[in-house]
This record gives sequence, C-alpha cells and structure tokens, in this order.
Amino acid sequence: ADSSDPGKPPPVVHYHLNNVTASAESTKNEETILILTPLARFYQGYWDNLLKLTYPHSLIAFGFIIPKTREGNQATAALQNAIADTQSGPEEKRFASISILRQDFDPPISSQDEAERHKMEFQKVRRASMARARNSLLFTTLGPTTSWVLWIDADIVETPPTLIQDMTSHDKAILVPNCFQRYINDKGKKDIRPYDYNSWQDSQVAADMAAGMGPDDIIVEGYAEMATYRSLMAKNADTTESRDQRATMPLDGVGGTALLVKAEVHRDGAMFPPFAFYHLMETEGFARMARRLGWECWGLPNYFVSHCP
Amino acid sequence: ADSSDPGKPPPVVHYHLNNVTASAESTKNEETILILTPLARFYQGYWDNLLKLTYPHSLIAFGFIIPKTREGNQATAALQNAIADTQSGPEEKRFASISILRQDFDPPISSQDEAERHKMEFQKVRRASMARARNSLLFTTLGPTTSWVLWIDADIVETPPTLIQDMTSHDKAILVPNCFQRYINDKGKKDIRPYDYNSWQDSQVAADMAAGMGPDDIIVEGYAEMATYRSLMAKNADTTESRDQRATMPLDGVGGTALLVKAEVHRDGAMFPPFAFYHLMETEGFARMARRLGWECWGLPNYFVSHCP
Ligand SMILES: Nc1nc2c(ncn2[C@@H]2O[C@H](COP(=O)(O)OP(=O)(O)O)[C@@H](O)[C@H]2O)c(=O)[nH]1
Ligand SMILES: Nc1nc2c(ncn2[C@@H]2O[C@H](COP(=O)(O)OP(=O)(O)O)[C@@H](O)[C@H]2O)c(=O)[nH]1
Ligand SMILES: [Mn+2]
Ligand SMILES: [Mn+2]
Repeated sequence: ADSSDPGKPPPVVHYHLNNVTASAESTKNEETILILTPLARFYQGYWDNLLKLTYPHSLIAFGFIIPKTREGNQATAALQNAIADTQSGPEEKRFASISILRQDFDPPISSQDEAERHKMEFQKVRRASMARARNSLLFTTLGPTTSWVLWIDADIVETPPTLIQDMTSHDKAILVPNCFQRYINDKGKKDIRPYDYNSWQDSQVAADMAAGMGPDDIIVEGYAEMATYRSLMAKNADTTESRDQRATMPLDGVGGTALLVKAEVHRDGAMFPPFAFYHLMETEGFARMARRLGWECWGLPNYFVSHCP
Repeated sequence: ADSSDPGKPPPVVHYHLNNVTASAESTKNEETILILTPLARFYQGYWDNLLKLTYPHSLIAFGFIIPKTREGNQATAALQNAIADTQSGPEEKRFASISILRQDFDPPISSQDEAERHKMEFQKVRRASMARARNSLLFTTLGPTTSWVLWIDADIVETPPTLIQDMTSHDKAILVPNCFQRYINDKGKKDIRPYDYNSWQDSQVAADMAAGMGPDDIIVEGYAEMATYRSLMAKNADTTESRDQRATMPLDGVGGTALLVKAEVHRDGAMFPPFAFYHLMETEGFARMARRLGWECWGLPNYFVSHCP
C-alpha cells in the first residue's frame, strides 16, 4: 500500500500484449524500445553515439548491468555522470527511463585485456558469465509495454543515427548489423576490419563437429584450432560506397555487439543459455533457442556499426 | 519525459541485486514475493484462500496472464471484481500491486474439460502453450527488487495461511508442496487423492526411454502407456495427522500447481521450455534447466495444497 496516501488503493494495471506492436512502422506506432547493455567499462563514445539517435528519445528506455568490482564501480560513476548531463539537458534529448543493475555474481576473468579475454579455453566460462549477466538484465527490465529490445555492447561507439528506424523497418524478429572495427593497416592507412564473428550461417562441418561432441561441449567461432567453415556475416560484407545497406541474409548464430530483438521473442522464453544448448552458448545459443521457438534470425551484412578500436 | 512536470528529469534507478535477499528469514528481511498465475478460469476459492495468507500483503505483488478468449474475458471480469473488493477493503489485506496481462496468442485447446485436456497426444502442444504463457508472464513482471516467485495455479483453492513463511523458511532455490485433490471415495467418504504428477525423482527406465528418443520427443508423466517408474512425490506422502510437514525430498522434475522459486534462479535464465529440453517441457523442463544452471529442486511430500475438486 502507498504509505503517502493510505486511502488510495494500490495500482492494478491491465495490459493487452496484443496491442504492443513491433512493426516496420515503429516511429508512427510509437513503439517503445529498451536498449540493454552489459557494461564492464564506460566509453564516452558509446553514450555520445546513442545521444545522436534520431528515434524519439521519449520512446527509449535503458537497462545496464555492471559488475560489482572496482572497475565496475568506476564505470558506474562515469555512466551516472553522462546520464545526469543528458537527463538534465534539453528535453528532447532525455530518455524515458534508465535502470542500472549491479551484478550479484563475480565475473570469472578479472582482466579485460583483449588477448586474455579471447583465449579459447576461457570462452566457455566467460560466455556463461556474459549469458547470466544478459539474462539478469533481461528478466528484470523487460516490461509488458516494451516492443523492441536493442542489445548493444558498451564498446560500440559508432552507428548510423537512424539505427533504430533503419533496423526496425526490416520488421524481423531478430536482426544483427555487421560489427566492424576501425584500425590503421600495414600501409599506415585508416581501414576497417570485421570484429564480431558470432553471426553466421551453419556449415556441414560444424554440424558434424557438433554430432561428435559430448553434451557439454561447445563450438566457438573465430579460432583456427576449430575451423567450422561456417559462412560468417563478417566476411560477407560489401564495403563499397555503393553497397546495398538493406541487403539481408538469414543467420543461424548471432552476435550481441548489436542485436535487435522483438520483445515478443524474449517473452516467449528466448534467453541467453549459460550452458551448452545444441553446443552453442550465449548469443549464439539464443539464436538457436529462438529458432526452436519458431523465430528467424537475419543479418544486415552491409549495414555497419563500429566496435571501439 | 514526464509531461505533467516537464522540468523534472526522468527517473534513473539504481538497483543492487546483491541486496535483494531470498532467505529463510523472509518476513524479517521484508522480502518481496511475486505470485504468478496463468489463469483460464476464475475460482473465487483461489482468491479467498490467498486473501488469508498471513505473509505481509504489502510484500506481495501479483501477476496474471489470461487468454484473450470469451472464457478469458469472463475470468478477467470476475478477477477484477475480486481485486476491486480487496484493494478497496481493509488496508492490511491489500496487496502491493497487481498486473493483469492478456495473452497475445491462442490457446491450442479451447475446451477446458479435464478428460480432453489430459489426452496424451495433446500434451505436447498444450504444455508448449502453457510454457509460453508462463514465460510471457515471467519476463514481463519480474522486477529487480523481487526476492521470490510463487507460481500458483488458478484452481488451487486451499493452502495453509502460512504458506509463504513455511515454504521460504526452507531456504531452497526451488521448492514444491504436494498437490492433492479432495473427492468422495467409493465408500461415499470425503477423501484426498494425489493430483500433480509432475514432481518426481528420475528413474533409470525414464533415462533409457529418453536415450532412445528423437530430439523433439518428450516424456510425459502419469500415463499408463508410458510407464516411467519415476519416484513420484504424489505417491510418497505421509497423510497421517502426525506427519512431519517439514520433510523434504530432492526432485528432478517439478509441477507448477504451486512452485516457489528464488527470483535469482529465474534471473539466471531458468524459464519454462516450450520445446523438448532433455525430453522435458514446461515446469519439468524448467527443473532440468535450473539444474543446468547449478540450482537444486526440492519437494515437501507431506506439506499439502489442494486443487479444486
Ligand atoms: N555486466 C557485465 N558486463 C561485462 C562483463 N564482461 C564484459 N562485459 C561487457 O559486455 C560486453 C561484451 O564484452 P567484451 O569484453 O567487449 O566482449 P568482446 O568485444 O566480444 O571481446 C561489453 O559491453 C562489456 O563492457 C561482465 O563480467 N559483466
Ligand atoms: N494464460 C493461460 N492460462 C491457462 C491456459 N490453460 C490453462 N491455464 C491456467 O493454467 C493453470 C494450469 O492449467 P490446468 O488446466 O488447471 O492444468 P491441470 O490442472 O494440470 O490440468 C490453471 O491456472 C489454468 O487456469 C491458457 O491457455 N492460457
Ligand atoms: Mn567488445
Ligand atoms: Mn489445474
């Protein structure tokens, strides 16, 4: 009961899930979107980029999950500064709401150094931990009026400002843009290279590999020791100026650096398995689980977002 | 932005999941509990029974999911009447909040007649539909401050008034009471009989059965055509007056007529698989998934709740 007004009956709310659309006309239908970010480090470029999104900010809610470590405390402080600036700034830039969760379990690897993080033997424990973080965030922030969920990593620092309109316009249950990284190439020139190898179409080699595995074994992508011959979206990009940014390809696995999901898919039960699910975990396992639930995954090979260098 | 007060920055909320305990001392720690009920028909006995719960009502929130059918519309109206009475009645009886979701997909079997519902061939499609309903309800109502989730079916009309205190006091991640049904026996005497066969310990027969099955096949409990020789909690009850109501037994499968779950288990990702998961679905699949996530299921063979006759 509301102690400030003892006479007032507590809230009873009635929701019609049928009326919560997630459609190609997201702006016109005023569809709400929940941006979810597991965050271990704060990048100002991440926030600055999202501030430039032209989708109505009043339809955008945020959810963050941040580890309860020293690094996580620093990230939380930096994030809160950025938020405070935005939410006290011009009204049209303010977002609808923001939830920050502090994680109640330990990240298994304390170092955030890239070489460390990627060592193959760490993948299973690391991805289980990431999956649990994503699930905690999802289960606690998804509401009955959310139309879309946009998963975006804290180190994605560049997207088109029309990201939400562009992606929702495809009207796909699950859709991933192609995640690249800017770098300086051998010739000292600015260049881009593929970053996220988790968006792929399955191969017979990978299927045979899976068939010979124990129930808890997983296939991880992007390691020479385990060549899967899957068709990676990262390797199927047209990087020319004249490319068709609206080209789509069906996918069997998806990455989570940026990932748009109709809220209905999650409500149906699609989560991020922290265990081997068809020999897949986390975002790749999510894709498989969504398919088990009757949903399809798609990728945009020529539509780019950038991971921090 | 809040249009009624344009100067006020929108809410930024910070949650510490670590501080959300789910402990044996639930009342003392003021732990919040979310009671979730998939509801196809409204039973006044269900509501009257829950009204008698002695756990502080201010710590109890409700979530319902009701099919968008004619029967569902009637159930919604009846539920809303009952709620209106309670929430405008004595303050200590009022609950913290109530969400009613109307389901955005069709229930596969429109008849609610018991013989119809139980036909073995319908089990797969029926349990998939129940699982989706439970997931939609769970994903949209679970919040960051919920400590416990109590699943209770709409046709459970009798429980001890101390149900929540009794069950939380065991401090188990997942705990099921034994669900019985009152009836008139052959001799015309009032009697009770087991109702929920989904709480069980696995058997070698069932394991062998599963090993020989296709990936989408499921084992269902309580059918002579498919004798599993699992040890059913329903058949392991001591019904004498002097029974130890606090006796516990470990379980591999759980039913959902009444089911207490630490919110953390769901946040970790444990949901109700609407597909064959280790040849199990819905609540039984949930038990298996929770175990994959490192949680244990327990039953209270001598602690009873009653399904409507
Ligand atoms: N909450 C949480 N977030 C994490 C953890 N580890 C990494 N992250 C965040 O999860 C996302 C993906 O992690 P990252 O290390 O960038 O993965 P990579 O780019 O695939 O190597 C980023 O937004 C990280 O800030 C963790 O243990 N807990
Ligand atoms: N939302 C929803 N609830 C349902 C549906 N079918 C049954 N229920 C409810 O789910 C619970 C379990 O269903 P019930 O038919 O009693 O199962 P049984 O007792 O195991 O045969 C009860 O609370 C029903 O009112 C459905 O299609 N949608
Ligand atoms: Mn990254
Ligand atoms: Mn029932």
